[in-house]
Amino acid sequence: MAIQQTEQKFLDYVKKMEAYNEALSLIFWDLRTGAPKQGVEQRSETIGVLSSEVFHLSTSDEMAGFLQALSQDEVKNELSERTVKTVELCQKEYDRNKKIPAEEYKEYVILQSQAESTWEEAKEKDDFDMFRPYLEKLVSMNKRFVEYWGYEGNKYNTLLDMYEPGITVETLDEVFGNLREKIVPLVKQIAEAKVKPQTDCLYEHFPKEAQRDFSLEILEQMGYNFKAGRLDETVHPFAIGLSPGDVRVTTKYDENDFRTAVFGTIHEGGHALYEQNISKDLIGTPLCDGTSMGIHESQSLFYENFVGRNLSFWKKNYDLLKQYSSGQFDDVAVEDFYTAINEAKPSLIRIEADELTYPLHIIIRYEIEKGLFNDEIEVKDLPEVWNAKYKEYLGVVPDNNAKGVLQDVHWSGGSFGYFPSYALGYMYAAQLKNAMLKDLPHFDQLLEEGNLTPIKEWFTEHVHQFGKMKKPLEILQDATGEGLNAQHLVEYLYEKYNKVYQLN
Amino acid sequence: MAIQQTEQKFLDYVKKMEAYNEALSLIFWDLRTGAPKQGVEQRSETIGVLSSEVFHLSTSDEMAGFLQALSQDEVKNELSERTVKTVELCQKEYDRNKKIPAEEYKEYVILQSQAESTWEEAKEKDDFDMFRPYLEKLVSMNKRFVEYWGYEGNKYNTLLDMYEPGITVETLDEVFGNLREKIVPLVKQIAEAKVKPQTDCLYEHFPKEAQRDFSLEILEQMGYNFKAGRLDETVHPFAIGLSPGDVRVTTKYDENDFRTAVFGTIHEGGHALYEQNISKDLIGTPLCDGTSMGIHESQSLFYENFVGRNLSFWKKNYDLLKQYSSGQFDDVAVEDFYTAINEAKPSLIRIEADELTYPLHIIIRYEIEKGLFNDEIEVKDLPEVWNAKYKEYLGVVPDNNAKGVLQDVHWSGGSFGYFPSYALGYMYAAQLKNAMLKDLPHFDQLLEEGNLTPIKEWFTEHVHQFGKMKKPLEILQDATGEGLNAQHLVEYLYEKYNKVYQLN
Repeated sequence: MAIQQTEQKFLDYVKKMEAYNEALSLIFWDLRTGAPKQGVEQRSETIGVLSSEVFHLSTSDEMAGFLQALSQDEVKNELSERTVKTVELCQKEYDRNKKIPAEEYKEYVILQSQAESTWEEAKEKDDFDMFRPYLEKLVSMNKRFVEYWGYEGNKYNTLLDMYEPGITVETLDEVFGNLREKIVPLVKQIAEAKVKPQTDCLYEHFPKEAQRDFSLEILEQMGYNFKAGRLDETVHPFAIGLSPGDVRVTTKYDENDFRTAVFGTIHEGGHALYEQNISKDLIGTPLCDGTSMGIHESQSLFYENFVGRNLSFWKKNYDLLKQYSSGQFDDVAVEDFYTAINEAKPSLIRIEADELTYPLHIIIRYEIEKGLFNDEIEVKDLPEVWNAKYKEYLGVVPDNNAKGVLQDVHWSGGSFGYFPSYALGYMYAAQLKNAMLKDLPHFDQLLEEGNLTPIKEWFTEHVHQFGKMKKPLEILQDATGEGLNAQHLVEYLYEKYNKVYQLN
Repeated sequence: MAIQQTEQKFLDYVKKMEAYNEALSLIFWDLRTGAPKQGVEQRSETIGVLSSEVFHLSTSDEMAGFLQALSQDEVKNELSERTVKTVELCQKEYDRNKKIPAEEYKEYVILQSQAESTWEEAKEKDDFDMFRPYLEKLVSMNKRFVEYWGYEGNKYNTLLDMYEPGITVETLDEVFGNLREKIVPLVKQIAEAKVKPQTDCLYEHFPKEAQRDFSLEILEQMGYNFKAGRLDETVHPFAIGLSPGDVRVTTKYDENDFRTAVFGTIHEGGHALYEQNISKDLIGTPLCDGTSMGIHESQSLFYENFVGRNLSFWKKNYDLLKQYSSGQFDDVAVEDFYTAINEAKPSLIRIEADELTYPLHIIIRYEIEKGLFNDEIEVKDLPEVWNAKYKEYLGVVPDNNAKGVLQDVHWSGGSFGYFPSYALGYMYAAQLKNAMLKDLPHFDQLLEEGNLTPIKEWFTEHVHQFGKMKKPLEILQDATGEGLNAQHLVEYLYEKYNKVYQLN
């Protein structure tokens, strides 16, 4: 068969997988935005059938044949770049799925589901020992998987690569080390600062519908395309791209803290802009997706923090917020409001942390995961290790494990290597902003004018359009002219918190 | 292989098909309740992939093997009844799909899509000749399909059988003949009646949210299970069952005519009760569905007309309606309101017709379709035939074809044999009500108490639970002790309209 024919067949095959994935995404969205409870059991069957089909297609002999035929060096230059990249991705997926013996994989899936429900109970009962054997088994099985998959340098690299291709322990040790070294003293300085933000106004009653209407206006301002999206309510907010023409945002409302919905929507809106602006040429291939967890997070954090927590943004939008609110901001100057929404203080719970302390929560988890996979930390010692690191980096110690080592869901699902993406996203964002300022020196003025279009366009040009055609570090290098560099985030945080807490 | 093993494999195979169908149903629901416009194109790809897969599974060699193995008389008594019925359904589907040559089927699918868009334009331009060649081709291809499929007695029987298994031209000629003979004079009598319902109050402004809240209360009263369903807004309302645990109702709101939403929701709620109460044993098989279009329609029409347009129902709910409305009913007695919502007068448009004249719209279409498939009517003569029948049965004549022969979408999609189900449903409903009265003689009193539970339970016992385990006429026979009988509907209509128009 001529190579072009094989290429076409492969692309059709891949398109079919993408169709199943779109259906699965819709099912996922539906289950989390109001699907009737009593339909969930049957729905699980449907998810099972569709997922198995995708798994089957990604590991079939037919797929093996395509990969074999299309990854030969001598044919590559006859294929489109899109095909070459798609083959690479499918090969990676194929290897990951085929290298684990089927029996072990099955055992692992069962373990995951038991571990998740046990974790839930253990957290509720503040009983680490209940969860411990599951976590031990999850770690040991993942270690074995790493052996099957192979690794370079450090075993943990293979796990990192699943979420952030190209990022290694070597890189993380350096950038996270820098970050920790600079943030820890800043956190201490702030704790001793005389300025204390007045935050009472944040907790006054703000009706849900009004929060929704305000959030919709902000999404519009960001350049979110409502003809290719919608906003719904959920319990754990997310954004999801079914295709670039259908990227949905979800949020939740707390009538006693409007920030949950407003900053949450801006955050998910950032994810959504990414997915809405991936090149349409990539539709129907697995390339039509964010390139990594971290680059995705760079988009959401950029909008949430660098736009949404920026004074200029509120100079534009504070009056609008006042209109929708119930009067609680009428006597609060925009500068005081800005200070309030940028309060920073060490806390125990990652997902409630502010911009400044957040990276420290991640760094702690990174150091622990790396220790686990390099046999330097044992699961049984985790509560102790956890608390010691919180004391050292954040100066706070949880009084129970529910608020400590048991707080996150990730490990119960076996997601090791995922946490670093959150902090990487933050660093990428700061670095991208630094590069953006060269093209858009009047960034703050754009915010003050409510003209966010050039920002979205800059991202589309340098990040969004490529989907998975470029790896995370390629995106970063091409957009900023340098490799990963923690310094930009450090500078941003120093400048911002010096201002908020009048440290100088 | 032991027969039980084959049976299990077959059931697993069928369960997979049902999973795809559930995903397709969700996609359908989503597209009609707010899916972003720009995602539609890509979504069509996904629908295409999933539908092809279902089609492939229903016509595969593997399916043929199952059908062959499981439909032998000597093994049938070793199989569960559920399996036997499932095999029958799959066999029917297999035959229908396999008997048409692939090339012709492909041609037909293209024709359908061209015909639908041409019909839309033709209706807008009131240009029958534009649509005519497509309709001719649709009729002639369907005639050929009937030859492929085979027929007994009358060619049109094969088309009827697709929507209403077991119903024949012979039966319809008789019952529709009876109905027409009795309704036509009643319509004339009413046209000359002195009583004229005062309907002004129906058209006053009624805010959408209030209509929604009222509709939700009525659904609750009907026994619709909100843990297994939800109510959403759409353009062309429908109910859809993803599984008995997830049956969704949709409605639309007209702020100048609350009846659209209220009676629409009750109608779709009737469909939904059916699907929510199918026996859970049938989940994962094609039996887990309404047994026919007509029996489905009997449930929706029963609730819409026999409950929702009943005076006792409004004695219970009129105060509630007043609370949600804007005062327009404050000076209208419930009896006058009842008269208003039961106004009957001949009209041109089927979907806007009242209870009394509706069956005549259907009978006209039935007679035309039967004529087309028995070579007694030609497509070119349709406008003339249409108008003549409207004149004869309803005493009204459309002044253009857009309001006449071009009004319905059905023919443009090649759906011949579908229309009779609407009137059959109505007759089934009247007949079922007659039987129900023997068990629930105080039917009106139940309505007046808002206690609709016994009604739902009666239907679950006699209709809902069976899904497709029983054919329509079996349901009817077992529940009512007789075959199809138009007399019950005639009596209901005479009794009701004598009362509304004080004819005696």
